[in-house]
Amino acid sequence: MSSIEEKIIKSGYLLPQLPAVAGLYSPAIRSGNLVFTSGQLPLLDGKLIEPGGKGKVNEQGREDAFNASRAALLNALAAIKSVTGTLESIERIVKLTLYVASDSGFSSQHLVANGASSLLLEIFEERGVHTRSAVGVAELPLDASLEIELIVQCDFSKHS
Amino acid sequence: MSSIEEKIIKSGYLLPQLPAVAGLYSPAIRSGNLVFTSGQLPLLDGKLIEPGGKGKVNEQGREDAFNASRAALLNALAAIKSVTGTLESIERIVKLTLYVASDSGFSSQHLVANGASSLLLEIFEERGVHTRSAVGVAELPLDASLEIELIVQCDFSKHS
Amino acid sequence: MSSIEEKIIKSGYLLPQLPAVAGLYSPAIRSGNLVFTSGQLPLLDGKLIEPGGKGKVNEQGREDAFNASRAALLNALAAIKSVTGTLESIERIVKLTLYVASDSGFSSQHLVANGASSLLLEIFEERGVHTRSAVGVAELPLDASLEIELIVQCDFSKHS
Repeated sequence: MSSIEEKIIKSGYLLPQLPAVAGLYSPAIRSGNLVFTSGQLPLLDGKLIEPGGKGKVNEQGREDAFNASRAALLNALAAIKSVTGTLESIERIVKLTLYVASDSGFSSQHLVANGASSLLLEIFEERGVHTRSAVGVAELPLDASLEIELIVQCDFSKHS
Repeated sequence: MSSIEEKIIKSGYLLPQLPAVAGLYSPAIRSGNLVFTSGQLPLLDGKLIEPGGKGKVNEQGREDAFNASRAALLNALAAIKSVTGTLESIERIVKLTLYVASDSGFSSQHLVANGASSLLLEIFEERGVHTRSAVGVAELPLDASLEIELIVQCDFSKHS
Repeated sequence: MSSIEEKIIKSGYLLPQLPAVAGLYSPAIRSGNLVFTSGQLPLLDGKLIEPGGKGKVNEQGREDAFNASRAALLNALAAIKSVTGTLESIERIVKLTLYVASDSGFSSQHLVANGASSLLLEIFEERGVHTRSAVGVAELPLDASLEIELIVQCDFSKHS
């Protein structure tokens, strides 16, 4: 097991199995030394996690959405591992984009994003410092509460 | 005519003339071996296509929006060609982002996206495998039903 | 002072102090010769600018939002300078993404975006030609009216 995966466990999580995709696209793709992921939902074993993974987010559901952002992030990391073979290859988290399905009047998307951001820092330390955008959208696929995509920079000389 | 443009025709489509832009920005820009496009609407000859190109998408309009996603995709490919000279340069479709103007309760943005995704695979085969994000937004320019942007990786030694 | 910062002043603006971030992420990050920014709000001295920086945008507030897009853009440029040391390093504005918190029925996000786009051209001239996406979202952090992110290409041999 890689030291990054050990840190994920120390943080109280497990790197999930890669969520199934429809087949028309790929969970992650390498271009040069960047890896782009598809938008990832807070799915676990093929289902939106409860609570917090489904429906529109409002102030009452903020803490659950914070946790759901970590579930979606772990799926994004699993997607990257499917391309790189190991999370050790990640040199830098470049960009995190978070779309939060937002109830009218909910404007704390940045606090939801802190769930994913703080976990990135815990796991990757200085390599986990990233840029991010957090926005509140009207609707998401499967009525998910949020969707996360990553761009990361990798050193492909580090193989598993 | 390039073999990619022949495949577009075999799929029942034509690469459109590049939609006019306001002049303050560019339809596509190269940076290194990547080409980024501007967000593309389902315009044909300067008008939003009917049905499916205009207004909010709901379950009843899903199939029309599926088709509209292909029209927006073709505009994105035309934008890339304006930079590369030929679609043969495209080595890999890296990322497709789809914004769907969504009626309240519509959560099948991924099924709308399958219109563009399946056409990419038809035209580009293994080079067309891409990552994607599909989200449901509140409103889009010109009351368009959807907007698509692409990032593609090119081999600029292949000229037209 | 750099000639780009002089042009900002000639346009009637000042490059702002970098807005504070929560500490869990970075305002901008370099990867290769690209710099990605975090999503930037129309903040000045830590407050959303009035008018135009707060709340949902509609037709009546369009001109104010046009101006707010310039405030968010200047914050994005300040974020880039924090990485590059000088705005002279910018070789090309690659991509501008604008999220506009939109009232129901407001579909002129592209006209709001023209505020940022035209200022980019004024300041950077041919280097300021960019791709862009403008979409209307449901909600934004802090009830901001809009959020802007940039991807720029830099020449890192040009130091301050």
